[in-house]
Amino acid sequence: MSATPSRTPHLDRVTGPADLKAMSIADLTALASEVRREIVEVVSQTGGHLGSSLGVVELTVALHAVFNSPGDKLIWDVGHQCYPHKILTGRRSRMLTLRQAGGISGFPKRSESPHDAFGAGHSSTSISAALGFAVGRELGQPVGDTIAIIGDGSITAGMAYEALNHAGHLKSRMFVILNDNDMSIAPPVGALQHYLNTIARQAPFAALKAAAEGIEMHLPGPVRDGARRARQMVTAMPGGATLFEELGFDYIGPVDGHDMAELVETLRVTRARASGPVLIHVCTTKGKGYAPAEGAEDKLHGVSKFDIETGKQKKSIPNAPNYTAVFGERLTEEAARDQAIVAVTAAMPTGTGLDIMQKRFPRRVFDVGIAEQHAVTFAAGMAAAGLKPFLALYSSFVQRGYDQLVHDVALQNLPVRLMIDRAGLVGQDGATHAGAFDVSMLANLPNFTVMAAADEAELCHMVVTAAAHDSGPIALRYPRGEGRGVEMPERGEVLEIGKGRVMTEGTEVAILSFGAHLAQALKAAEMLEAEGVSTTVADARFCRPLDTDLIDRLIEGHAALITLEQGAMGGFGAMVLHYLARTGQLEKGRAIRTMTLPDCYIDHGSPEEMYAWAGLTANDIRDTALAAARPSKSVRIVHSA
Amino acid sequence: MSATPSRTPHLDRVTGPADLKAMSIADLTALASEVRREIVEVVSQTGGHLGSSLGVVELTVALHAVFNSPGDKLIWDVGHQCYPHKILTGRRSRMLTLRQAGGISGFPKRSESPHDAFGAGHSSTSISAALGFAVGRELGQPVGDTIAIIGDGSITAGMAYEALNHAGHLKSRMFVILNDNDMSIAPPVGALQHYLNTIARQAPFAALKAAAEGIEMHLPGPVRDGARRARQMVTAMPGGATLFEELGFDYIGPVDGHDMAELVETLRVTRARASGPVLIHVCTTKGKGYAPAEGAEDKLHGVSKFDIETGKQKKSIPNAPNYTAVFGERLTEEAARDQAIVAVTAAMPTGTGLDIMQKRFPRRVFDVGIAEQHAVTFAAGMAAAGLKPFLALYSSFVQRGYDQLVHDVALQNLPVRLMIDRAGLVGQDGATHAGAFDVSMLANLPNFTVMAAADEAELCHMVVTAAAHDSGPIALRYPRGEGRGVEMPERGEVLEIGKGRVMTEGTEVAILSFGAHLAQALKAAEMLEAEGVSTTVADARFCRPLDTDLIDRLIEGHAALITLEQGAMGGFGAMVLHYLARTGQLEKGRAIRTMTLPDCYIDHGSPEEMYAWAGLTANDIRDTALAAARPSKSVRIVHSA
Repeated sequence: MSATPSRTPHLDRVTGPADLKAMSIADLTALASEVRREIVEVVSQTGGHLGSSLGVVELTVALHAVFNSPGDKLIWDVGHQCYPHKILTGRRSRMLTLRQAGGISGFPKRSESPHDAFGAGHSSTSISAALGFAVGRELGQPVGDTIAIIGDGSITAGMAYEALNHAGHLKSRMFVILNDNDMSIAPPVGALQHYLNTIARQAPFAALKAAAEGIEMHLPGPVRDGARRARQMVTAMPGGATLFEELGFDYIGPVDGHDMAELVETLRVTRARASGPVLIHVCTTKGKGYAPAEGAEDKLHGVSKFDIETGKQKKSIPNAPNYTAVFGERLTEEAARDQAIVAVTAAMPTGTGLDIMQKRFPRRVFDVGIAEQHAVTFAAGMAAAGLKPFLALYSSFVQRGYDQLVHDVALQNLPVRLMIDRAGLVGQDGATHAGAFDVSMLANLPNFTVMAAADEAELCHMVVTAAAHDSGPIALRYPRGEGRGVEMPERGEVLEIGKGRVMTEGTEVAILSFGAHLAQALKAAEMLEAEGVSTTVADARFCRPLDTDLIDRLIEGHAALITLEQGAMGGFGAMVLHYLARTGQLEKGRAIRTMTLPDCYIDHGSPEEMYAWAGLTANDIRDTALAAARPSKSVRIVHSA
Repeated sequence: MSATPSRTPHLDRVTGPADLKAMSIADLTALASEVRREIVEVVSQTGGHLGSSLGVVELTVALHAVFNSPGDKLIWDVGHQCYPHKILTGRRSRMLTLRQAGGISGFPKRSESPHDAFGAGHSSTSISAALGFAVGRELGQPVGDTIAIIGDGSITAGMAYEALNHAGHLKSRMFVILNDNDMSIAPPVGALQHYLNTIARQAPFAALKAAAEGIEMHLPGPVRDGARRARQMVTAMPGGATLFEELGFDYIGPVDGHDMAELVETLRVTRARASGPVLIHVCTTKGKGYAPAEGAEDKLHGVSKFDIETGKQKKSIPNAPNYTAVFGERLTEEAARDQAIVAVTAAMPTGTGLDIMQKRFPRRVFDVGIAEQHAVTFAAGMAAAGLKPFLALYSSFVQRGYDQLVHDVALQNLPVRLMIDRAGLVGQDGATHAGAFDVSMLANLPNFTVMAAADEAELCHMVVTAAAHDSGPIALRYPRGEGRGVEMPERGEVLEIGKGRVMTEGTEVAILSFGAHLAQALKAAEMLEAEGVSTTVADARFCRPLDTDLIDRLIEGHAALITLEQGAMGGFGAMVLHYLARTGQLEKGRAIRTMTLPDCYIDHGSPEEMYAWAGLTANDIRDTALAAARPSKSVRIVHSA
């Protein structure tokens, strides 16, 4: 018997980062190739974030060869790019469970491995966290070096700038690796991006920078002397300082992020010599080493399962139009009718469907970069100027602009249209991306109108309603993925503000649904009817203002009222309860249950699995309704706290 | 009869900004002096933000002389400095009502005047708003020029950077006036501040900057030629570009912000020639022209009524220790006991009481500047490194770090101690500073423990409890101002997590208070007892986890339950209702009322006036309890929605 020789002889020797220490540059280079191939193979079977991880294979290998994780803290910004890190830190055998129920997360996660020093999912947090660790070390905590690895898209966010500004002031030793691939999810926008390009192009540089001398003088000979290497050490502008140096960092770069020798040498020398904050500017190619990714417009940033030969993704045939696409198309139609309609995205033109409007009305769609705080107040300014801004954000990123929604939009009663995509549980991106809190954020803001679409036809109506609503701010939430396959209106109708609709009429149990869980409510009602429980299902449509007539009728005419929403406590159900308390209707002693997301974070899985863990299936609704309406006949279901 | 000659002959001629157009530089200079004197006189009688307004008198006069408000949009960042603007835009006669109930606001406010183009209160929003207006103009809205006036403290915030980055990319014509007084509320920190100082010091500069040529060549002769003026036009670093130019702005400055001729000339020429975004760097002196302010460490940033001669403020004698001071002192004592305790403030060392700890343990207190997003994740990083970070923020500024609290702190279960000062209504700073939403933000975040102090002794216990609580994040809210004068413990005790306390035992009505409105609850209980209604008052202490045993007992033993909090709907009361719904206790038909802040914004006034408008006086509590417990005997009080 002869064993087939392994295709991954170097990777097979790696049980953890320590095994990289003794490897030569040639070995590390070979290891990187094997890791890259493995990532392509894994993601072709699991789907996931491909392009970013392929771009940082050499960088990750070099970082683990030079630094000592977990004592040294590698902090991956956003975390899209952590697959090589996971493979090298003891999780290789579990990679095929990536992003699947019970499997490993697609992002760094502290509970998963000591090598995941700081979790991520949202962008631009890494420098702040790294600085926190650096201060911990200075104050005697057992922490080694701290290294933030952040992309050129993420570093444009205000939060990253705040952290750079503070780090430059504190002068603590820490490393920021700027992974510059000229792409975040979409090509980054903004003046900083233009500036980074200018630096990266400027080779060879005119002079070494005196300010960085402390580091440069100790660089190894080939680096110091070689003409090719000279461009790594120097400033962008002849005689000037880079923006990062102006913020107090030593700047080293640009470094070729796919040249292992250059990477390892630069990291080793910098690690040996740095006394304060250092920014190392590494240029990489998103999708590097896998031709279909390098050739794709989005560099195969996020993919479903695909064919390795061709890179062709196995997309399932949709049953119904996607909410995001419906939003993008319907908004574009309204924009054609009304010149005042403009749209804003924070680095997500495709993810929000605004690329559709962008193609037709490029001057009226604004991609502000990863900058939700600015995005909200920029939209408020446009509204104050008389425009009709639609600001489209994912629910979990609305959290980034909360103060601006309170202070600049709601308090001033400015007609910003906040379009909240990815509301509710989102599937494989897991807890960091759950759209759990947008309703509780907005439901108690005076002046705001808050809607949720029960299906894709409702979304059409609500886009038109938002366009027509010019007397104050209005929000509209809708979920990720496909609609229900309902009939679509030619054009949406302007809905009456604060009025819901009754879907089915019954007499014993009332289910009042807010948003896209209406389908489950209707299914639960069928089950209840089959058991002889006469059930009303209503779609609230609005959380603010509440349809108080509808609520009064439901309370009056039923023994039990179940509110239902794809969101956390403190949202729609809470507003219904506040209303009933205020109006003295709780004295009627009706059985009321507020079905919300449970009081815990839900790990990644399919949306169906996640809603099952959340206790929000049609079965759960039926059980809850039954227990409420007929307590003696059923086991009491206590919705977990 | 001979009339006394007016002390303000120039100002008397001003009914609006248009009246400044025909004035000579000498007249404008005289006008500025009169405005300055008037501000000192007004604020000596009203209290308010003195230093900032005094610093921008000449700048404000020059802006109104050159631009045409309200067609042109002057957008004041934060708005502390808007008093000269208010005096010049038709509100002179109302200045003595400043910050008082029914009077004019201490901040720009759209509903107050068309000259207040965009409201403010929170910092660093002006560039975003101005860019929104600029885009409005480009898309055909009737908007003139847009001018953001922002301080050197405010421009360090990430949001301002996001806006600069976007504006530099869009290249829309707009003006950013950087009001550089080397002071925000405290002296600003951070690398950017160091950089601004470097620019401001560098005079005369070595060379004019080619990139700004389009503007420079058209400057008036004296400006272009004069050696004194040369320093206004040029770059900071010889041969280099300023940071602002790297972000895509034309940079002009520094300009002497107290030299009317220089200001007016620079603004006129720039206004005539600018095609894209321009940043004008104006150096001012906070407190300028009023010796007691110039000489004060805080430049008399915010003052109570004062004596004009001496600048001495008329502080009322406190009846009880101030919550902020109690927090600062007690934390410092704990920090002396535990080396792992560190503290973070976002540009508010004095406002949060952390200056007390800073004096004793300077290396363990971190002022990150106006950078709440970074502050939260920086604290999370320190917690992950093993430190015990106390992050002290005003409630309304916690809104700035909401995503980071969700994503970096709560989800990762990191033991960050969030100290929420200025919770509830805050008085003269009005609606922008109301601490209304912190509980609804945190009450539904899994892993978080949320406390509120009922009095200053409770605050002592809770600081100690927070220090001891190392298993996850914990928040503590407390109000602005003086405590109740209760006896103070030598050292606080560690409270049992999730356990409230009963203050008085009764049988008919239960009032469950969360936080500092306990005093009003106790007063209401006295009134109720006097009317023969036996009343229990309990202090919940915790909103998360709820004291469910206590709630069960209150529901069981009383006809009515009133929850009480100094916060918006969706907070403590909502969590109690969710719990009662989930456990089937609403079926008991008890009369339950959730007393919260009403569903509207409350304008400035004294805290007592504001709580009266909010319907949260002891009388209101009594009325609500009576209506709930004995509906037939009392007029139904419906808590306004």
